[in-house]
Amino acid sequence: MQTFKEHAAAFATYFSTRHFPESPATLYEPGEYFLSWGGKRIRPVMCLMGNELFGELNPDSFEAASAIELFHNFTLIHDDIMDAAPLRRGMVTVHEKYGQNTAILSGDVMLIRAYEHIAKINTLYMPRILQLFNRTAREVCEGQQLDIDFEQNSSVSLDEYIEMITLKTSVLLAASLETGAILGGASEGNCRHIYEFGKNLGIAFQVQDDYLDAFGDPEKFGKEVGGDIRQNKKTFLLLHALAVSSPEQQQQLYGLMMRNPADKVAQVLDIFRACNADEWARELKEKYLAQALRHLDEIAVLNVRKAPLKELAEFLIQRDQ
Amino acid sequence: MQTFKEHAAAFATYFSTRHFPESPATLYEPGEYFLSWGGKRIRPVMCLMGNELFGELNPDSFEAASAIELFHNFTLIHDDIMDAAPLRRGMVTVHEKYGQNTAILSGDVMLIRAYEHIAKINTLYMPRILQLFNRTAREVCEGQQLDIDFEQNSSVSLDEYIEMITLKTSVLLAASLETGAILGGASEGNCRHIYEFGKNLGIAFQVQDDYLDAFGDPEKFGKEVGGDIRQNKKTFLLLHALAVSSPEQQQQLYGLMMRNPADKVAQVLDIFRACNADEWARELKEKYLAQALRHLDEIAVLNVRKAPLKELAEFLIQRDQ
Repeated sequence: MQTFKEHAAAFATYFSTRHFPESPATLYEPGEYFLSWGGKRIRPVMCLMGNELFGELNPDSFEAASAIELFHNFTLIHDDIMDAAPLRRGMVTVHEKYGQNTAILSGDVMLIRAYEHIAKINTLYMPRILQLFNRTAREVCEGQQLDIDFEQNSSVSLDEYIEMITLKTSVLLAASLETGAILGGASEGNCRHIYEFGKNLGIAFQVQDDYLDAFGDPEKFGKEVGGDIRQNKKTFLLLHALAVSSPEQQQQLYGLMMRNPADKVAQVLDIFRACNADEWARELKEKYLAQALRHLDEIAVLNVRKAPLKELAEFLIQRDQ
Repeated sequence: MQTFKEHAAAFATYFSTRHFPESPATLYEPGEYFLSWGGKRIRPVMCLMGNELFGELNPDSFEAASAIELFHNFTLIHDDIMDAAPLRRGMVTVHEKYGQNTAILSGDVMLIRAYEHIAKINTLYMPRILQLFNRTAREVCEGQQLDIDFEQNSSVSLDEYIEMITLKTSVLLAASLETGAILGGASEGNCRHIYEFGKNLGIAFQVQDDYLDAFGDPEKFGKEVGGDIRQNKKTFLLLHALAVSSPEQQQQLYGLMMRNPADKVAQVLDIFRACNADEWARELKEKYLAQALRHLDEIAVLNVRKAPLKELAEFLIQRDQ
């Protein structure tokens, strides 16, 4: 059994290859360009770990992991068009570098390429994995659409936000684990639990991400704090603050979002703290982490097999923040 | 065994249903809107006919046919964005009605929905159909990219144009027939022939389409003649004329394309006729039609089974024009 880091290294080696034919270069170079940036490859590694939770590593897990990573990158290319984002992680986005039409088409062909990897999986497991992949892919599109809708909709409830986050990011983490589990020979009951582990872990991670963007230590967090606040992004913290704050605080918040004063971040953080949004978010994160770990506990395999996934959860969800 | 019209009626009934969940309506309504326009449904019917060439109609052919039709519609939604087309067949396009971001995303989700139909096919046939579908889908993207590239590239050879047309339109017709053939239990050899029949028929059809746009009887053709010439579209006729005409004629053609005079269509047609491009195109069409029919002849089934496909070829490719 391997750790997250060992799986990540193995997958990076496997995935560091050309993914598309040479020609037509106008179609395939943009995809190669985007994939060459690397990345944490969390989802494919979760697929490999989901497999090893139940059995020896099935070589088809690398096909499934590749499909998942290609799918994830397809969503990033199309999301960047929709967000009109000039940069991603400091690199020029595909539509910015190659034009929008090519970005649409190279995203499309990356999604199809993902299915080409699925098609290579042993037919013993492939139909079940294809169904899970399809459902998940459609849910991710739903999440992206809800995210777009919410930006234009002033009243979004916490439940609606959790639903959006679940669809947009958590179901793919969950499906990555379950896909590996299927290839490891897991029973349907165990598949359900590993899926729920991933889904709840994903929500906990997003709560933490929103929290750190507001209250994190900039050195540990790795990016400037307050970005979400500056952009008026709907986050767990903002939605909670709007839900529990006094009418005066609500008016203050809306006013700050409209006026964008220079000290907006500090003022919004003051209101967040006054509403105990920081404490509430820490508890919410713990709640989802605990739910995730409960599902991991329920999985009927030896505890020693669960250790790498427990480590992953602890690595992703920091308790000291 | 059924005729094209009977299959078309059966498929129209089957396909006249909601294709997506109700919610989120912002994601799924645009797809329902686009699919509600109807259409000739040529590809799904070719799938059903490919099945019946070899055996009793397999109910899974309707799943495969739905996947193919959804895939085709996905390409239209994304192509319309790329072409910035305000209308398609007189209807407001998806990106024009709902915005570009929603058009990208509802195209994406339509492609995924296509794969959900593939996933429902009996596992006896599904892996082979998935592979064919994937390869074809990727080729269609290649064809679309080549089409975009060619618009910006002044020197395109006839072979390059045929390659582009083959990828952009013919391979999907070919794969529709072969998918049905697989579900009808066809051998690999027969599958190859039915694929080649569809591919060559598709090329013949495109040659005819280019021909009719220039030389067709407007009443029979159903749309205004000369549209391709007015838009300086690269067509079989233009590429041939540029290849065989005298230096003076070439200069005249380029001049007409640059200046766009009021009588451009008539002047270009005069040059086409002077180069015998009309006669050449008729011969080229016949050549591909003959190749198609030769492959149909090679298929090892009783001739009576081939009758509906021969009728289809005669219906699509008019000999009197």
